[in-house]
Amino acid sequence: MQLRIRRPDDFHLHLRQGKILASVIGHTARQFERALVMPNTMPPILDAEEVVWYREKILAQGSGLVPLMSIKIVQATTPEMVRAAYTAGAIAGKLYPVGVTTNATDGVSDISALAPVFAQMEQSGMVLCLHGELPGTFSLDREQAFLPTLKNLAREFTKLRIVLEHASTEEAVECVMSLPLTVAATITVHHLLLTLDDIIGGTLSPHHFCKPVPKRPEDRAALRRAATSGNPKFFLGTDSAPHLKHVKECAEGAAGIFSAPVALPLLAEIFEAERALDALERFTAEFGAKFYDLPLNEGTIALVQESWQVPDEIGGIVPLWAGQEIAWQMAE
Amino acid sequence: MQLRIRRPDDFHLHLRQGKILASVIGHTARQFERALVMPNTMPPILDAEEVVWYREKILAQGSGLVPLMSIKIVQATTPEMVRAAYTAGAIAGKLYPVGVTTNATDGVSDISALAPVFAQMEQSGMVLCLHGELPGTFSLDREQAFLPTLKNLAREFTKLRIVLEHASTEEAVECVMSLPLTVAATITVHHLLLTLDDIIGGTLSPHHFCKPVPKRPEDRAALRRAATSGNPKFFLGTDSAPHLKHVKECAEGAAGIFSAPVALPLLAEIFEAERALDALERFTAEFGAKFYDLPLNEGTIALVQESWQVPDEIGGIVPLWAGQEIAWQMAE
Repeated sequence: MQLRIRRPDDFHLHLRQGKILASVIGHTARQFERALVMPNTMPPILDAEEVVWYREKILAQGSGLVPLMSIKIVQATTPEMVRAAYTAGAIAGKLYPVGVTTNATDGVSDISALAPVFAQMEQSGMVLCLHGELPGTFSLDREQAFLPTLKNLAREFTKLRIVLEHASTEEAVECVMSLPLTVAATITVHHLLLTLDDIIGGTLSPHHFCKPVPKRPEDRAALRRAATSGNPKFFLGTDSAPHLKHVKECAEGAAGIFSAPVALPLLAEIFEAERALDALERFTAEFGAKFYDLPLNEGTIALVQESWQVPDEIGGIVPLWAGQEIAWQMAE
Repeated sequence: MQLRIRRPDDFHLHLRQGKILASVIGHTARQFERALVMPNTMPPILDAEEVVWYREKILAQGSGLVPLMSIKIVQATTPEMVRAAYTAGAIAGKLYPVGVTTNATDGVSDISALAPVFAQMEQSGMVLCLHGELPGTFSLDREQAFLPTLKNLAREFTKLRIVLEHASTEEAVECVMSLPLTVAATITVHHLLLTLDDIIGGTLSPHHFCKPVPKRPEDRAALRRAATSGNPKFFLGTDSAPHLKHVKECAEGAAGIFSAPVALPLLAEIFEAERALDALERFTAEFGAKFYDLPLNEGTIALVQESWQVPDEIGGIVPLWAGQEIAWQMAE
């Protein structure tokens, strides 16, 4: 059995810089036409100049992947920086509340003070991407505790397009559904696949550790329903985040899952299990592009139902589903 | 400030065997008169002969610690084995549901089939110690899902003394309080100290990973109330479990926290924070002994309020609170 779909896009991707960038970009390029590249590199991508610099670094890899650029919204971001970054080609601004995940020590502590920045984004047509967790609350409650902030932003900036990134709870799914069409959510492969038990339920699994942490089976079920429902508010953002093995298997393991090498094969398996293979194309190749007001991709890719074993390690990084079988793979 | 209390007992301790036994026993001996030694060694302590063999190994260390012996209740345990083990000096039988924690692949899958064993324990006066988690349920619900089993055992064997080990939830505390005086619970140092956020809330912390996993702040608060309340149903069992660093910092981290080197100093700090230093002696040196029908210890130990820094590593093992300050220490 073969499945041919329009070339998909990944609306949430970490490519990093230097050697890691070079080693991971091909996995995404093989499957995706475009990817929204996260700006929380070290150092971060904060302004127009850095957007141009980072895009050139990515294009210099010659992978064929079309990078969609973003800037990191920090407390010091100004409307002028937003306007210039937009002119330089950034289509989104990503906001991390302070300390909520990897490379977020420079995150935002006072979101309301950024109202002029959001107003400029709204005017320019730049999308606001939110890591939707409230710092300082119990880990399992952080996403839910952030939802009032999401609602307020949607109410205050009625034309600003907002994406709640990597939704992880039933409450977030319901909240996004209840808000106007300007508000959408990305869903990752791993949040469709894992629950908290895959981290702490047996032995401790650092390679399944990410933020927001996968939650209860009921939350995963809600995410699967949202992803397969055909509701255009939910589309793919893998949040694939490469960390070298030793940064994960240590006393203070980094958050992030490297799903790029297995993203579409695992999605095909999940959508098939949900009897929703027909919804895969819309989730991966249509709803995101439409929300971002981008043209749909022209070409197609094909997946074949042929089992393969995921390598234990890829370039020093342990990928999602390492050592395990997946029933689908990319056709050559 | 100095605090002098009756010599305490640890009613839940992992000593392991061989080199690890030799390297860890001194930390417990320095603080505790007696310790109930867990039988889930590799291979396990299942019968009278093994009880005698293991006790000799422990005594051969010459640490001064008085070992209180237990056997592991497995599906193949018989009333005859219980009787013989009791005669050989075992005062408790420890039951692990299959697969719930480290070294529990030989755990029990059918508890009701062990009724004749429980009847013999009841008759002999042997205590039944339960790892109270129901396998196959979501990790955060496992303890609560086990409570009906605890209630059934208490109802069916009205003279059998039962200990719910390492209580980790508010629901477990309330359940134990609601049951007859034959049912008690141990509480660990780390469940009084940590929540799930100390494992997954920031970076991933394998050295805080244990079973049952620490839960929500509300659960920790309930455990602190129980431990400091003066209710004799709640007493100390540290569940100190030494694992070499490389067994924790890896792709499949082992569950267990090595708290022995810091147990009483941390307890003093916690009880002081709860304004309940006066309750420390009963929790650590009286309620457990009374429940187990053992004489109270004669001597005393002293703690002084003098800050120290916990070493990063002790004999290849990362202890609880490694590298951090504790306001109390054992007096020389």
